[in-house]
Amino acid sequence: MSGGIGTSIHAHAKGPAMKVRVHVSLKPGVLDPQGRAIHHSLEGLGFTGVNDVRAGRLIELDVADGVTDADLDEMCRKLLANMVIESYRIEKVAAPELKA
Amino acid sequence: MSGGIGTSIHAHAKGPAMKVRVHVSLKPGVLDPQGRAIHHSLEGLGFTGVNDVRAGRLIELDVADGVTDADLDEMCRKLLANMVIESYRIEKVAAPELKA
Repeated sequence: MSGGIGTSIHAHAKGPAMKVRVHVSLKPGVLDPQGRAIHHSLEGLGFTGVNDVRAGRLIELDVADGVTDADLDEMCRKLLANMVIESYRIEKVAAPELKA
Repeated sequence: MSGGIGTSIHAHAKGPAMKVRVHVSLKPGVLDPQGRAIHHSLEGLGFTGVNDVRAGRLIELDVADGVTDADLDEMCRKLLANMVIESYRIEKVAAPELKA
């Protein structure tokens, strides 16, 4: 890899692209201060009827077609989710909206 | 509302609950340093075939059935998303997994 920063983000494509959404959320029972803060703010804004709020992350990947489900699983376990306190869900999206 | 903190998170229910997922993502063209850092780390770990990464937020709400789509829209516009740089998508989930 060259030392250039900010160059050729799209240069690693291998064939047609596929869009993947990774949903990362805290496991049940894990304390969620961010979710609680959002809940509190919603109530402060006058919204009623909200029972619970959980905050998580959404990571949208644009990957080459050659990337397998096992690869995606490994990415999640190694980097995208902290498996001790978080769980993840992989959702494949047919059309690569990111590149549109 | 009483001044108690950490009490009765589930005390505001109005009828049966409904689970809602709000996906918040940066609008196209908005610089995403977090996504770029994830992309860089994936490459550092040896994962090839990743063309682009965008980072966003996932907010799971457990709301009463009486909460309308307009209410949810307003929550997103007022608090959950920064409409200047972010867009949101509301997804309703039938079963309230959060309360299971």
